[in-house]
Amino acid sequence: MVKKVVSATEVAKLANVSQSTVSRVFTPGASVSEKTRKKVLEAAEVLNYHPNALARSLITKKTNIIGLAMKDIQNPFYHEVLGIFSKKLREKGYFVLFVYTENEEIQQDEIHHFLEYNVEAIIVTDALLSSKLVEQLRKNDIPVILFNRYEKSLLCNSVSCDNIYAAREIAAYVYKKGYTDIVYITGKINTSTNRDRQKGFTEYLKEKGIDVKIIEGDYTYERAFHVTKQFIEDGHKPEVIFGANDITALGALDALKEKNVRIPKETAVIGFDDIRMSSWPNYALSTWIQPVQEMVDETINILMSSKQRKEPQTIKVKGHFIHRNTTV
Amino acid sequence: MVKKVVSATEVAKLANVSQSTVSRVFTPGASVSEKTRKKVLEAAEVLNYHPNALARSLITKKTNIIGLAMKDIQNPFYHEVLGIFSKKLREKGYFVLFVYTENEEIQQDEIHHFLEYNVEAIIVTDALLSSKLVEQLRKNDIPVILFNRYEKSLLCNSVSCDNIYAAREIAAYVYKKGYTDIVYITGKINTSTNRDRQKGFTEYLKEKGIDVKIIEGDYTYERAFHVTKQFIEDGHKPEVIFGANDITALGALDALKEKNVRIPKETAVIGFDDIRMSSWPNYALSTWIQPVQEMVDETINILMSSKQRKEPQTIKVKGHFIHRNTTV
Repeated sequence: MVKKVVSATEVAKLANVSQSTVSRVFTPGASVSEKTRKKVLEAAEVLNYHPNALARSLITKKTNIIGLAMKDIQNPFYHEVLGIFSKKLREKGYFVLFVYTENEEIQQDEIHHFLEYNVEAIIVTDALLSSKLVEQLRKNDIPVILFNRYEKSLLCNSVSCDNIYAAREIAAYVYKKGYTDIVYITGKINTSTNRDRQKGFTEYLKEKGIDVKIIEGDYTYERAFHVTKQFIEDGHKPEVIFGANDITALGALDALKEKNVRIPKETAVIGFDDIRMSSWPNYALSTWIQPVQEMVDETINILMSSKQRKEPQTIKVKGHFIHRNTTV
Repeated sequence: MVKKVVSATEVAKLANVSQSTVSRVFTPGASVSEKTRKKVLEAAEVLNYHPNALARSLITKKTNIIGLAMKDIQNPFYHEVLGIFSKKLREKGYFVLFVYTENEEIQQDEIHHFLEYNVEAIIVTDALLSSKLVEQLRKNDIPVILFNRYEKSLLCNSVSCDNIYAAREIAAYVYKKGYTDIVYITGKINTSTNRDRQKGFTEYLKEKGIDVKIIEGDYTYERAFHVTKQFIEDGHKPEVIFGANDITALGALDALKEKNVRIPKETAVIGFDDIRMSSWPNYALSTWIQPVQEMVDETINILMSSKQRKEPQTIKVKGHFIHRNTTV
């Protein structure tokens, strides 16, 4: 099947406008009246015309494509993040080129592909990025924004929750309740989110003379379920468990239920994220609300202004604790 | 910042190979020895060379971009689908341009954007597509594949579970257990998945002289929780509830638990999909396993061969029932 290529000139002729008006109608963000826009779109539809964004991008150097690299596709928190990014970027005329990166660290060839498609910026959620790759992107003048994490050693933008602040607030809550037998189930230990939550939580309690028992998790339900079941079977029933994210807390919660531990009376449980299922009545998990909408807005702000700035930006948002049924 | 543009010739010179070899290394699917590939990639890295996929696409007419339009970003089933698509398409050298469509029906301008980016095919999961848009895509020679649904009236490919077969199998199971007080909580009523599951389930039982009580849901946890709580409060405690998808069944399950209904003794619950959390011990939901990997493979097969075929293909896969704790 051979496609008949329709030119902008033909559309302009049918719509009775200039060719530059047709061009403006198909340029994201360009000014054009609603009436003219409608006329041009109708003519375009009649002729089956669609401008070639890729050809245009070679001239304007703007592709309107943002690369998004994500690893933990199983974590509901990141599904929500993807949905919000996709929606908000669309409103600004941008599209998401999505890469699900299976490796712990983003690979050279994944970045190569982003470069090949002339993405205008790269958003990296939970995958790791080597300083060598960041340098390569900097050389190509492509801003990188770490979302929900930061790395001091990397020269790139980041937007995350103030995890130290949040974890200290949670610790203060736990301390006020008078608990002393306290468990923290970690996330992946090499992530900034886990590092800061663990630091904020344990340091606050340490200052009060309380040692927190650290149990290694990996941000999955399955691991948290397993380790919690294990320490209950070993005869340790803590007064409170703080899970490094909601999925971890839900895994712990289900293990406690299976062992007939009364929640929150015998053991209270606290998570972090406020994923949708944490508010389901069966769980009703007390947790820290990460202000995802705000985090996405901040990321897009950086993205829109990054060409004017030299220094990378670090944004931290706060969020707040929500008390549901798993705490007294 | 002005980028220095490095040409393939310079890379060829440094790697001591021909320019066409450099070109082959950067063409997805082209044959080249591992040794040569390594040599070229090293030279490319030294020179900070990356080929322009967009410029190449104007010549080859191949962008290696697949558009993926999805609506129900809150349903874990579709997260899994997105992850698997992204991974398997990558293996074939393709990238996913992701569009989260908020409207019930895919809009003209969303398709416009896909056309602008010269996507090679469009995969549509749960959003609706008008026959007018399908026709427009056909004119542009872009194959459309409906995933997890089909529409007889639309001239496009589809890959879905054989929902009528599956629902009849579930009905046979329910019948064999001797239940007569049976509730089906629907999904969104205008979807092919709900239509077929409802049809297969109710028709089988009708043939056995049993009327199924239909309660309208919408494929969300929240709605299923609400309606189930409602009919329990109204004094109706059915022997079994079949939810149109897992999220629906989990909502029903939690409402039953809140009302202290013993599961599965008083009321059994069955879902459809086998999302990850259905196997969590707290739920252990009996459900129909949709063979997602197989469905994605079939979709990619259609995608790879669609240019050679004129007639759209309809693929139905089977899947199977898994008995967990919510059935006797």
